[in-house]
Amino acid sequence: MKKKRQPARKAGGRKPPKPLIGKLVIFGVGLIGGSFALALKRQRAVGHVVGVGRSRSNLLAAKRLGVIDEMATDPAVAVKNADLVLLAVPLGQTRAVLAHIAPHLASHTVVTDAGSTKRDVIESARRQLGATFSRFVPAHPIAGTEKSGAAAAFAELFEQRNLILTPEPETSARAMKLVRAAWKLAGMRILEMTASQHDRIFALVSHLPHLLSFTAVANIAGQANAPKLFQHTGGGFRDLTRIAGSSPEMWRDICLANRDAILSALDGYLSDLEAVRGMVEASDGAALEQKFAASRNARAKWLLKK
Amino acid sequence: MKKKRQPARKAGGRKPPKPLIGKLVIFGVGLIGGSFALALKRQRAVGHVVGVGRSRSNLLAAKRLGVIDEMATDPAVAVKNADLVLLAVPLGQTRAVLAHIAPHLASHTVVTDAGSTKRDVIESARRQLGATFSRFVPAHPIAGTEKSGAAAAFAELFEQRNLILTPEPETSARAMKLVRAAWKLAGMRILEMTASQHDRIFALVSHLPHLLSFTAVANIAGQANAPKLFQHTGGGFRDLTRIAGSSPEMWRDICLANRDAILSALDGYLSDLEAVRGMVEASDGAALEQKFAASRNARAKWLLKK
Repeated sequence: MKKKRQPARKAGGRKPPKPLIGKLVIFGVGLIGGSFALALKRQRAVGHVVGVGRSRSNLLAAKRLGVIDEMATDPAVAVKNADLVLLAVPLGQTRAVLAHIAPHLASHTVVTDAGSTKRDVIESARRQLGATFSRFVPAHPIAGTEKSGAAAAFAELFEQRNLILTPEPETSARAMKLVRAAWKLAGMRILEMTASQHDRIFALVSHLPHLLSFTAVANIAGQANAPKLFQHTGGGFRDLTRIAGSSPEMWRDICLANRDAILSALDGYLSDLEAVRGMVEASDGAALEQKFAASRNARAKWLLKK
Repeated sequence: MKKKRQPARKAGGRKPPKPLIGKLVIFGVGLIGGSFALALKRQRAVGHVVGVGRSRSNLLAAKRLGVIDEMATDPAVAVKNADLVLLAVPLGQTRAVLAHIAPHLASHTVVTDAGSTKRDVIESARRQLGATFSRFVPAHPIAGTEKSGAAAAFAELFEQRNLILTPEPETSARAMKLVRAAWKLAGMRILEMTASQHDRIFALVSHLPHLLSFTAVANIAGQANAPKLFQHTGGGFRDLTRIAGSSPEMWRDICLANRDAILSALDGYLSDLEAVRGMVEASDGAALEQKFAASRNARAKWLLKK
């Protein structure tokens, strides 16, 4: 990513240029929220960062690491005069945070989120924010690792990754422009789609894989000889289950929030796996080889060229 | 791994010590067969390595890379006076190779294999080798990558990894000793279990994960909007599906060879995934979170401490 050059200052000392965001408030200073703050700080695109969260020790770490400038406990006080509020909390907390802050938002404050599902977040925001809903920008940065917490945050997390925006008819152009500009400075490619499209796509490419991975570990852990089995797992199993190290709370909330699309994705996979089971049962070597070759080729074509 | 010191030679020039294996014949000079040759050569534990295989270009590459010393096309000639014959071919070829070489094995020749399943290999060997079956040592080195071919071979592949031996009552002590010694020099930890135990364990920890991974790619590739979906896959999907890059032929053969244990493993997984589906359908957040946390904890306990 190219760094934005700061305009040269005239001799005689004018004030430095106003940053894109004077005051940024982040709810949930974890991997995503923390990395967003660091990315904007690196670009000198933010004046003051306030962090709000459930864990005091995490906020203290965030402050010590320079991720945030100030920690706050009262959401109402925290959002006062904010230019941008980012919700980077587990989906299950979205509604409560919106309800807390709604009465205290200034008329210029833009609110955005980083939730892994979009329809339910939009529904909460429409209900909790009322007229202010036009300044809410539903967003999902497609980035992350299986780690969590402020200490896992780093400024480069979003570089060359996709940000999906799912605006509603009410969403104001000014709010969109600010959120786009901020994530663009963090290095993201920006795409738009509807919330329904988003939720269907990510049920298939992200939520389903996580459920498969969690279940693969649970399957072994549930066997009578689990300790022996784990001793014999190799690199393949380790890779397959890397994402089973992800946050249980976050994934619980995603399952609840995107229930219908996930059920549909699960049904498709269950039916595909039943079909493979049928081929094994019938000792249909030709069908199995064709299936495996098609998968290997599709993976080579799509994943390796990305 | 510590290298074995060559005993110091006396001045006046005695001959160098006799290597463990004078003549080694490898059927299938791919990742496993080629790496075995390289590991033994590095230890000066082999005198002469003959490679046999279906692909002339692969054998030429193996010769050029110093993996083998000689390439052969006639199995009967190749095995003449061999000390050790290693079968590292896809399981589907085991029976045919054994049938070809059986009449030409010297009375001291030991035969072993590297197949991913053991019951069916043993059944073939017992049928094809007759009295020579006592010098057949069923073995499975638990090592590999998703790559294949002689060019992928490297001497360190087996270091610190497990070799599973599944001897039968007839298996001779001398044959076991030679095969143990060879793989030990390649850096492996050597374990023994019955062929049935082996096949049940690896159906769960290896064969099932490969089927899940192949099916995860097939599931996306089979959607109407597959190109768009692949564009939105991320690191989680990439890791989950790394092993879907594996050889379709090899995995077809494993499915055919270990059918019953794989069906049983698939049924267990299907039932676990149905249970997760039930929790999503019932919006049972507590059960989902408990399931995910148990998986994360099991993974941390077993995989990360390995």
